[in-house]
Amino acid sequence: MSTSTTRPNPSTDAAGASPAELGVGMRFSIHPHTDRFVDVILGALADVEEAGLTDGLTTETDEVSTYVGATTAPAEQRLAAYLSAVIAAASRRSGGGHVVVHVLLSRGCPGETTCDLSVTGLPDAEPIELEPTGITAAAQWSLYPLLDAGGPASASNNGDDNGNASSGDHMAHIESAIAAAHGRGTAATPAHYATKLTGDIAEVLATAVDAWAQVGAHVPHVVTHLTISVGSPTQSEG
Amino acid sequence: MSTSTTRPNPSTDAAGASPAELGVGMRFSIHPHTDRFVDVILGALADVEEAGLTDGLTTETDEVSTYVGATTAPAEQRLAAYLSAVIAAASRRSGGGHVVVHVLLSRGCPGETTCDLSVTGLPDAEPIELEPTGITAAAQWSLYPLLDAGGPASASNNGDDNGNASSGDHMAHIESAIAAAHGRGTAATPAHYATKLTGDIAEVLATAVDAWAQVGAHVPHVVTHLTISVGSPTQSEG
Repeated sequence: MSTSTTRPNPSTDAAGASPAELGVGMRFSIHPHTDRFVDVILGALADVEEAGLTDGLTTETDEVSTYVGATTAPAEQRLAAYLSAVIAAASRRSGGGHVVVHVLLSRGCPGETTCDLSVTGLPDAEPIELEPTGITAAAQWSLYPLLDAGGPASASNNGDDNGNASSGDHMAHIESAIAAAHGRGTAATPAHYATKLTGDIAEVLATAVDAWAQVGAHVPHVVTHLTISVGSPTQSEG
Repeated sequence: MSTSTTRPNPSTDAAGASPAELGVGMRFSIHPHTDRFVDVILGALADVEEAGLTDGLTTETDEVSTYVGATTAPAEQRLAAYLSAVIAAASRRSGGGHVVVHVLLSRGCPGETTCDLSVTGLPDAEPIELEPTGITAAAQWSLYPLLDAGGPASASNNGDDNGNASSGDHMAHIESAIAAAHGRGTAATPAHYATKLTGDIAEVLATAVDAWAQVGAHVPHVVTHLTISVGSPTQSEG
């Protein structure tokens, strides 16, 4: 078992940490519902690489999913642009058929359990900007601010120069994110354990990635999951 | 926006709360990589219903996923048995083809943001028991204990009769779960943001569901995500 978790330790200072040091990245899997799924997946991955969208990213595909880590800023912009393009490419290559992409975006814990949760000077969130794809998606979205409970055993709330880095209750962060999604018009209806988002693939992704980065300005370890569906026979157009 | 979050409040006592009150349930989506995906999905859902595996559960399928809520105990056993059967049924109905199932298991927050995080007397975890399916799966698994940071604004660590209900740091819970997975032989290799699990579908699910329920004995709001792949052309048999 390879684990290396740095416990909260006010002496560690990660101000100016690179996206790679913060572990800003994602895992995603593409599910074309067609007999030609291998060609669609490999073709879509090749399309985004040829378009130069892997610049500043490191990618690794295994039998379950593809890992994409951001090595240089702007990390969130690079990840979102890659993801938007790969979903659109898979949709195109499947002839507008039913494709679902599942994505996990993470920051603050680069490995399986490798974290430095004592970071200070967390980066401000820069809103991402994506070209519309022209493809409507229906998605289900969940956001997980991974706080630590206070008490004598935790030093994460000791008021360093990023005093609110681990503060607050996790539902408040989630409620703010959902309110922002309603504000931009992508949040459709509440669901058990998730928020339904509809809109252009680019708008749906921007909603989730912006929210994840905004929580990441205050909470070191934040994960968000999105299940994005296009071309579903039962999908109501947004 | 429909939200109703009960903030930590020591006067609320949910001892003896039903699985429905605790919001023990899941969302899952089935992705058969075949032109016959509609028949495979609807057939698998019908198979488990006919087998009586929806007893004690409430289900609702929308355009992105299926929600399954547990209404009566044993909640975790019912959810895991349903899930194991539906994945095996989808694999059979696709002729052993490539099927991926994504699942989100949640407890502590029944709706979109509807939570009562002040529960006391959280239920002990009963280990689940599943018949082997004979089908080997490769999975990626992530576990999210959703704690609240301590401090004056939070009353969740005030030492009620379930004093450790919200205590600890979230990575310690995750590390314990991964150690347990290694102990039962399903944990394969660490990955960025996830642990790879391999084994019979039933063993992979038991690993994740047991871990989620065990954390749920101490932390009110816990979510786990699993991406489970069977029949992949690039899958190494476990």
